[in-house]
Amino acid sequence: MDVSKPDNFKVSLDVIEKTMTGAGPSNYHPRIRQAMSLPVLGHLHTETLKIMDDLKEGIKYLFQTRNSLTFCVSGPGHAALECALTNLIEENDVILIVCSGIWGTRAGNIAKRLNANVKMLYKHVGEQVSLKETRECFRMYKPKIFFMVHGESSTGMIQNNIEDYGNLCREFDCLFIVDCVITLGCTPLFVDKWKIDIAYTGTQKVLNAPPGISPITFSQRAYDKIVMRKSLVKSYNYDAILLGEYWNCFPLRPRIYHHTICSSLLYGLREAIAIFIENGGLEASWEKHGKVTRKFHSILEKNGLQLFIENAENRCPSVTSIKVPDNIDTHKIISYAMNKYKVEIGNGVGMTLGKIFRIGLMGVNCKDELAERVANILIEAIRAIENEKVVSKI
Amino acid sequence: MDVSKPDNFKVSLDVIEKTMTGAGPSNYHPRIRQAMSLPVLGHLHTETLKIMDDLKEGIKYLFQTRNSLTFCVSGPGHAALECALTNLIEENDVILIVCSGIWGTRAGNIAKRLNANVKMLYKHVGEQVSLKETRECFRMYKPKIFFMVHGESSTGMIQNNIEDYGNLCREFDCLFIVDCVITLGCTPLFVDKWKIDIAYTGTQKVLNAPPGISPITFSQRAYDKIVMRKSLVKSYNYDAILLGEYWNCFPLRPRIYHHTICSSLLYGLREAIAIFIENGGLEASWEKHGKVTRKFHSILEKNGLQLFIENAENRCPSVTSIKVPDNIDTHKIISYAMNKYKVEIGNGVGMTLGKIFRIGLMGVNCKDELAERVANILIEAIRAIENEKVVSKI
Repeated sequence: MDVSKPDNFKVSLDVIEKTMTGAGPSNYHPRIRQAMSLPVLGHLHTETLKIMDDLKEGIKYLFQTRNSLTFCVSGPGHAALECALTNLIEENDVILIVCSGIWGTRAGNIAKRLNANVKMLYKHVGEQVSLKETRECFRMYKPKIFFMVHGESSTGMIQNNIEDYGNLCREFDCLFIVDCVITLGCTPLFVDKWKIDIAYTGTQKVLNAPPGISPITFSQRAYDKIVMRKSLVKSYNYDAILLGEYWNCFPLRPRIYHHTICSSLLYGLREAIAIFIENGGLEASWEKHGKVTRKFHSILEKNGLQLFIENAENRCPSVTSIKVPDNIDTHKIISYAMNKYKVEIGNGVGMTLGKIFRIGLMGVNCKDELAERVANILIEAIRAIENEKVVSKI
Repeated sequence: MDVSKPDNFKVSLDVIEKTMTGAGPSNYHPRIRQAMSLPVLGHLHTETLKIMDDLKEGIKYLFQTRNSLTFCVSGPGHAALECALTNLIEENDVILIVCSGIWGTRAGNIAKRLNANVKMLYKHVGEQVSLKETRECFRMYKPKIFFMVHGESSTGMIQNNIEDYGNLCREFDCLFIVDCVITLGCTPLFVDKWKIDIAYTGTQKVLNAPPGISPITFSQRAYDKIVMRKSLVKSYNYDAILLGEYWNCFPLRPRIYHHTICSSLLYGLREAIAIFIENGGLEASWEKHGKVTRKFHSILEKNGLQLFIENAENRCPSVTSIKVPDNIDTHKIISYAMNKYKVEIGNGVGMTLGKIFRIGLMGVNCKDELAERVANILIEAIRAIENEKVVSKI
């Protein structure tokens, strides 16, 4: 043989359980782990198709939409983002992207690859955009597509008044894409009422499901734009019409084979949505996330820590961002919490790297005891690292 | 609420174990099911990165390559195919695609989306291409990229002498992509020795791992073409350079965050490769698949069934295609086997739909007893359906 067997596999796979309180993935519920261990099914088996049908109904409920073109992309949240953009964008289409963290940047990156005419509406990291300045950009650029992040996981900010932007888009005959990766399930979101044309989310945040299968929904207006395209969608895997045919979104068309879906990921997501509904569904989850996060914030502030998003109304109830005290190395804090307690504290990402901690209390991890525990561990870690520095100075 | 909670989730998830002897996915080994139930890890956790490093070594061994740009795409086998094409193709690039089943058609579909100048070398379904006619096409079209399927799952045919085509590609300064989805692990494949520039595979065939994470490898020549591109790769998710940076394929560059990988799928694949190596690795697996499949074929032929691929040398040792006897409805046979025995017999797909049965004996499913059992069930089912027709005629 040209290449011999690697030795790496002589050591058995060994995975310890951590408390996943970074910006995601969050912990699996034990029932989700159980679901993931079920036997594999084929991508066109009756049972698989039934699970997909169930999932569609679950996702429509979570998004609060009646869109028939609602399904999952077989890939991470990034794949859903790319699916949204790649289906809508044709060469030279003007897309306006609000950017106050990494997700706007990422959307811009993808739109450029697709030869869109990309207009970025940059805000300071963690700062909300206003309707007024957005309207000015609409007047100036006449975008065909508008992209906005509901909750920015890199800063912990939530964009309020999404509904106003939906109305603005209708006024300018523009399609409205909203990234709901960290907001779905933790805070009100009404895709139809808010006139959102494409919304997508990740499964590994509030839903506690495995990543790798990402819900997305398309309005009739988005569908119309796609079927009226002059050019082919640049991707087969992300082609929304083909995916819709596989997911049986068009009752009058036959179901097609599109790709080999991972049945295990379907099981995980189905179990996650079942648990979510059993626990009271959207209203109960919104209330829980709001309450626990406010308590979490108050413990942090009582202990002298500062939240990165100053206005309480602009704080996302799933991911909290905390300013790093002066002269503190985030890596040391993160290692301290992980090594001593197996508790994840997230670092910033992109522009916020080293400047904030990010802590997610999502789904099964959203509870008072854990909020207290993580807050205490963060405070302990900061004190320990500060003391270490004092000692080393002496 | 605009959309109320769906009732679908009141019924618990219930998945029965089937004998997965269609064209894939194949059954998980119990250890893989165990691995899938392990706790989730983050996409940049030390343990996750170690598993990814292990996987790279495992994949290099399986592909028999030393390519440093070797990783997995987070998506099904189709995603790996799209990753191969989307990184190599620039507008108007001539790509020559051999097509004698659905995979050539699929590659052509994707290449057209990317505005390649697509030249198809069509063969009858199940017929091999010859080096001579390929060379003529090379002379005529001067392709920059050549695409060939090693084992065509829609027909059960294996393309012999891949090495000759590697040499041809070098002669014409053309890049060579080979689809190894159903061949990896069941029959000799030497990516480096055979001068293949991109090879990719699926995990749900011979490896018995979950689908959704697909190994791919790029040669230095493929890498050079990608970095010399004049236009951006049309996809962020499939951008091989960014994926290589996440998978730490470039030792001198820092590891980046690219997307949230599904740790559960990594566990499943790692366990699958560990089992594959423990069972003797490539040579043992090649021998087993050859032997069991020959036995399977001989039982079928003894019972009057005809194999679809006439020349024994052109039969793929993982997926067997069997001609459907005259006037037999494949759906009835497939339902009979599934309902009575929970054993999967695959239908044809694309041009072969209703014309062949496809049976896969892959990895843990590749054993004499199962070969006998599935052959007997197929024969029983055909007789039962034939008798049913006789009775209904009377």
